[in-house]
Amino acid sequence: MFEARLPQAAVLKKLVEALKELVTEGNFDVSPSGISLQAMDSSHVCLVTLQLNDDGFEHFRCDRNMSMGIHFGNLSKILKCAGNEDTITLKAEDNADQLTLMFESANQDRISDFDLKLMSIESEHLGIPDQDYSAEVKMPSAEYQRIVRDLTSMGDTVLVSATKEGIKFSTSGDIGTANITLRHNTTPEKEDEQTHIDLKEPVALTFALRYLNNFAKATPLTPQVKLSLTKDLPVVVEYKVGELGQVRFFLAPKIDDEEAMGDDEAQS
Amino acid sequence: MFEARLPQAAVLKKLVEALKELVTEGNFDVSPSGISLQAMDSSHVCLVTLQLNDDGFEHFRCDRNMSMGIHFGNLSKILKCAGNEDTITLKAEDNADQLTLMFESANQDRISDFDLKLMSIESEHLGIPDQDYSAEVKMPSAEYQRIVRDLTSMGDTVLVSATKEGIKFSTSGDIGTANITLRHNTTPEKEDEQTHIDLKEPVALTFALRYLNNFAKATPLTPQVKLSLTKDLPVVVEYKVGELGQVRFFLAPKIDDEEAMGDDEAQS
Amino acid sequence: MFEARLPQAAVLKKLVEALKELVTEGNFDVSPSGISLQAMDSSHVCLVTLQLNDDGFEHFRCDRNMSMGIHFGNLSKILKCAGNEDTITLKAEDNADQLTLMFESANQDRISDFDLKLMSIESEHLGIPDQDYSAEVKMPSAEYQRIVRDLTSMGDTVLVSATKEGIKFSTSGDIGTANITLRHNTTPEKEDEQTHIDLKEPVALTFALRYLNNFAKATPLTPQVKLSLTKDLPVVVEYKVGELGQVRFFLAPKIDDEEAMGDDEAQS
Repeated sequence: MFEARLPQAAVLKKLVEALKELVTEGNFDVSPSGISLQAMDSSHVCLVTLQLNDDGFEHFRCDRNMSMGIHFGNLSKILKCAGNEDTITLKAEDNADQLTLMFESANQDRISDFDLKLMSIESEHLGIPDQDYSAEVKMPSAEYQRIVRDLTSMGDTVLVSATKEGIKFSTSGDIGTANITLRHNTTPEKEDEQTHIDLKEPVALTFALRYLNNFAKATPLTPQVKLSLTKDLPVVVEYKVGELGQVRFFLAPKIDDEEAMGDDEAQS
Repeated sequence: MFEARLPQAAVLKKLVEALKELVTEGNFDVSPSGISLQAMDSSHVCLVTLQLNDDGFEHFRCDRNMSMGIHFGNLSKILKCAGNEDTITLKAEDNADQLTLMFESANQDRISDFDLKLMSIESEHLGIPDQDYSAEVKMPSAEYQRIVRDLTSMGDTVLVSATKEGIKFSTSGDIGTANITLRHNTTPEKEDEQTHIDLKEPVALTFALRYLNNFAKATPLTPQVKLSLTKDLPVVVEYKVGELGQVRFFLAPKIDDEEAMGDDEAQS
Repeated sequence: MFEARLPQAAVLKKLVEALKELVTEGNFDVSPSGISLQAMDSSHVCLVTLQLNDDGFEHFRCDRNMSMGIHFGNLSKILKCAGNEDTITLKAEDNADQLTLMFESANQDRISDFDLKLMSIESEHLGIPDQDYSAEVKMPSAEYQRIVRDLTSMGDTVLVSATKEGIKFSTSGDIGTANITLRHNTTPEKEDEQTHIDLKEPVALTFALRYLNNFAKATPLTPQVKLSLTKDLPVVVEYKVGELGQVRFFLAPKIDDEEAMGDDEAQS
């Protein structure tokens, strides 16, 4: 038997909204230590991993490991029926073919229960090695969202260059070229508004803007996003999921473009 | 001659917005006692009745009974030109082929008059007998709106079950099943937020969600809605129209579904 | 070399939003006295002129006159990347084939530069003679926007009649007729809310609503709009562009309709 309760539905609602465009379906792997997910996006270009730790829940019980195949569009439809402030409880019998979601309003005047049919989804787990990155950039997630959205109106790919002074996003297209630079800046009192660059060596990588844009759907989850960059390796775009854990998006750089555009910049 | 004045256009604007999707056209029957309307929706599935009493108007004069054929989409276009706070006056000569609408801003700086062409619409009046209902449920209209909208994403029909504890809305569809229960609850200080169930006997009826959803377009009119339920009879969904009267929507239950799903529930 | 700086990007963003629907492309003519533009709308029905004076800018330098061919849709895409409060700098070398736009946030933490490719656009300058108008009407720009938008739902053309009492907008269509009158009114304390009619002689002219509606996209620029009307001459619809100058829209009246509908009114 599996049962997990959160005092506020909002975090799960935001998480599923963040995932559903990128990941049509995937397995929630449930174990006594929490809920995890590993899935490729529907075009098999980028990888999404999710970890929600048991101790972040108000109540968490999992008697035996199980894998629940979720259609994220359908889960989203059900979660839209939950109020942000509702208590939410997830439940499933062992080897169940459905996941039950219960929503309770604060004063218990409104109680909803939904059964979501589970799917059988084949998946293989990729081992993702721990990695030292050339550059780790923490920045306001709203700023990240705005930059990749703005650049999408100008071009298809973006060159992301990290130096110790700042992080620069560059693109070009039919109408012209664009460069947006965010400076390393730890002066704002609110940590959420700071931009913090932890640099081992300068790095410049080119990515498809479309995917960086999709990752930004996780912006409502948390005020800061972390970008981890190393030459020839996928970028990791990481958002915290409340106190529960984090969601990470992995996207490989465009190798040709990087060599054509990036090497010079990375040395500068 | 017919003339009727309201100090605020808002109520009439909301009313016509509520009706125009369901009822393409219908006759405003004007008499010295007020304005009434009886119309089938365009798919001839549900019935709408409206009563606006003469004494709810700031000024009301009707020299002889007349029937004015209204295209609600066109009336809506004209009412969109009225400010919510404008005084509104309706005028027509006896046997006129147009209805004049005058809008005046509070300081009289802006005066508009619109002539709406009237239509000739055949209609027959149904006698609607007074009825004792098995269950009368008053609930927040926003809650009703939200429930039927949420369930529409899951299924096509809804089983509405009233017991003395509460009113339950159930549906099922391809992605799973859903139950939302609202408890009888008279504790909120504001009467508008209460849910009040007046029960003679438990009842459970199945309806097409699409129509219950359309009725919810009347939500802006008033904070409470009343549902009146009796076995084998149409549900009545009633909204007050300010101090003027009320609009009622009638929808027959789905008999087959009710027998298959409802009888057991109704006994419980 | 050309360089111009504004302390806030908002005014330029609003201006380009106002123009881009009507004018696909046009030449910014830059001289030491400022920036000007003269362009026909894409259907070659109405004329747009713009004047931004050098002394309205925080900094303005222009070494030699030049003409920069702008695609307004593309310029709009770039300006959407500027924050309303950003400092904005426009730069171009003499005879450049691109215009550089720099946006700087207040605390300099975010710096963007965009290069917009320039176009070669043929254009001829029309001499627009100074003119005494029969009627000059200043009115709240939001009121103008609302009236022409409201009437567009009723008809295709509007008869605009100015008398010393007020300005009346009339239309008719399939669903009926409409008249909206705004009275001369200088009583509101805020000048922005006044309607002021300066009349030499009554005038009534008929225009295509579609264009008057398009002009109203300039509403966010300023709280007042000025309409200048003379028989048989184009109406001038004028909006101030902050402290920089103004944009003017010229639209010829519909002569046939005017004679059919307007002459009587103009004498009244």
